[in-house]
Amino acid sequence: MKAKVTGLEGIVAADTEIGYVNGAEGKLVYRGYWAKDLAIRHTFEEAAYLLWYGELPDDSALRSLREQLKAHRILQPELKRLLDAMPKGTPMMNVLMAAVASLAEEDSEWPPKAEQAIRLTAQLPAIIAYRYRKVNGLPWLEPNEDCGHADYYLQLLFGHRPAEAHVRALNAYMILAMEHGLNASTFAARVVSSTESDLYAAVCAAIGAMKGPLHGGAPSGVIKLLEDIGEKERAEPHMRGNLEKGERLMGFGHRIYKTPDPRAEALRDVTAALSGDDPWLGLARHAERTAIRLLAEYKPERKLHTNVEFYAAAVMRAVQMPPQLFTPTFTAARVVGWTAHILEQAQINRIYRPQSVYVGAMPVEG
Amino acid sequence: MKAKVTGLEGIVAADTEIGYVNGAEGKLVYRGYWAKDLAIRHTFEEAAYLLWYGELPDDSALRSLREQLKAHRILQPELKRLLDAMPKGTPMMNVLMAAVASLAEEDSEWPPKAEQAIRLTAQLPAIIAYRYRKVNGLPWLEPNEDCGHADYYLQLLFGHRPAEAHVRALNAYMILAMEHGLNASTFAARVVSSTESDLYAAVCAAIGAMKGPLHGGAPSGVIKLLEDIGEKERAEPHMRGNLEKGERLMGFGHRIYKTPDPRAEALRDVTAALSGDDPWLGLARHAERTAIRLLAEYKPERKLHTNVEFYAAAVMRAVQMPPQLFTPTFTAARVVGWTAHILEQAQINRIYRPQSVYVGAMPVEG
Repeated sequence: MKAKVTGLEGIVAADTEIGYVNGAEGKLVYRGYWAKDLAIRHTFEEAAYLLWYGELPDDSALRSLREQLKAHRILQPELKRLLDAMPKGTPMMNVLMAAVASLAEEDSEWPPKAEQAIRLTAQLPAIIAYRYRKVNGLPWLEPNEDCGHADYYLQLLFGHRPAEAHVRALNAYMILAMEHGLNASTFAARVVSSTESDLYAAVCAAIGAMKGPLHGGAPSGVIKLLEDIGEKERAEPHMRGNLEKGERLMGFGHRIYKTPDPRAEALRDVTAALSGDDPWLGLARHAERTAIRLLAEYKPERKLHTNVEFYAAAVMRAVQMPPQLFTPTFTAARVVGWTAHILEQAQINRIYRPQSVYVGAMPVEG
Repeated sequence: MKAKVTGLEGIVAADTEIGYVNGAEGKLVYRGYWAKDLAIRHTFEEAAYLLWYGELPDDSALRSLREQLKAHRILQPELKRLLDAMPKGTPMMNVLMAAVASLAEEDSEWPPKAEQAIRLTAQLPAIIAYRYRKVNGLPWLEPNEDCGHADYYLQLLFGHRPAEAHVRALNAYMILAMEHGLNASTFAARVVSSTESDLYAAVCAAIGAMKGPLHGGAPSGVIKLLEDIGEKERAEPHMRGNLEKGERLMGFGHRIYKTPDPRAEALRDVTAALSGDDPWLGLARHAERTAIRLLAEYKPERKLHTNVEFYAAAVMRAVQMPPQLFTPTFTAARVVGWTAHILEQAQINRIYRPQSVYVGAMPVEG
């Protein structure tokens, strides 16, 4: 007999005021706001402030947050040495875990503080970009202009100012990737935090969970689809070919959302507005329309909606994010949700200690 | 209204063949064997083999495991550089997290392997000792004689061969600390592993949970008690003074065990056999007998039994373990249980994704 695991499906592990996911109705709410509206109309910084503090910032609070993020962007020499010490082959997600764990200081004790969440959120893009450039033999430039978070991340990665359309697309993606209920990574963060461990340790655990392909899997299937299509004219014949061969179209259908995924809808809106500015965003918009038409023709009995991976892939391809940085970029966004949950867990904490049922052998009494 | 967390008390999160904890009856079983018997009669290596492979090793399997552990003891230069890179003030548990996360290699993918568990178990004492000696300005010696695990750990830490009594006491402590059901750290390891993340990432999460004082709290209260007592003659007057002042006697009473804690009983047996060999073990044995007599006199209505912290503290004090290494030493033992659970989780995996209940504001529809 093999031991079983339950997955805790349907078991309530926490109340939360942070996020509401309703897949049956296609709803995603962050603290009283539609995530979709936040992604279309707000910046990364505003959405992060909302998740951490429970309300959108006024001008003064936003200015203060931007200043704090800017102050914490710089990598300390110790951290650079640590990043340099790891072998080239160490997977990026493990590099992030090591870096995040090492950010704890002697005074990083319980309870977790919003300032730590801000510091970590500011550091992650720099850690990712530094390691990426070093491993690839690129020089490290450290601009620290007064620009937004998504803008800065792209500058760090590529060493030049990004196109405005790319900043807006990445900003929307990162807002929509910030929070999604008690997924495995957020849950891991809350379990670690529930022992009164520090915020960095809890985020480190979350990154470990995010690394798993069942959780933080990258939208590489969709990227391949878009690259195989290549230009608008080839969208219909290529995807018709896929469907004729009985192949799945990557980027359509979702385990949770049985209605249109609100994250895909938000990214579609943002993409549509930018599709004249970037060929990949335009191609994605065209490919999606074509796919929906073909799916209605080939699989009329199934209600297949565009999922968030489809447009996430379009955004990643448009901003030229290297594939090995998809999950790390997801991490740099989701850190906001993780830290919001860690701060919430601290309000009325209780250690997580579920039961196990022993199904092994028993010794002879004595 | 503040969000609540459940702690998942009473909820079954996994079946397991690894360990059975029954606090009401004072039972602790590792894969069909009393943990107490294992601690008294077996070595760290034998108990670890049992947890990983499900049976005690025969001579050839044991020889092979010892060779593997020996081969994996050496710290690679990259890892030393990483350990050197972290500021002196970085807490040791965070240092361990960073080191463990960084041990993952490109091929450290799902499913986890027993060889990875062995490698990590071999590395942890060396990582702890290296960092401890460096931070304290002590030279790093790296003996690699053909000695047992607990023996080697003490040699690495202190730079000389330990007393046989100390090796035996630490060996027993480490066996009893290996496994204890679905505590928060083991659960965190299983949650991370359930995403099909790597074994190092899962152990890293467990270390983060172990860091929390609600979980891996060090037996420093008992150490202080023993040091305050200092010599056998002072045991009764000192503890009588504590009880007269209404103070708790540290090391007695336990949240789970309402009967004698089998881990305390095992360590008492080992300690009794060694009490002539080490003054601290002798003092602890005497102090415990005195405490039980005084508790029966002062608190006859409460059934207070000696808990594992009492004898853990005695062992730690006897081997002269520095207090900041208590929780790391616990970690170096518990890693065996964590990795056994990670390997078990992989057999029939299911991602952990419990529910949360949203109790925050809802947006106006639209």
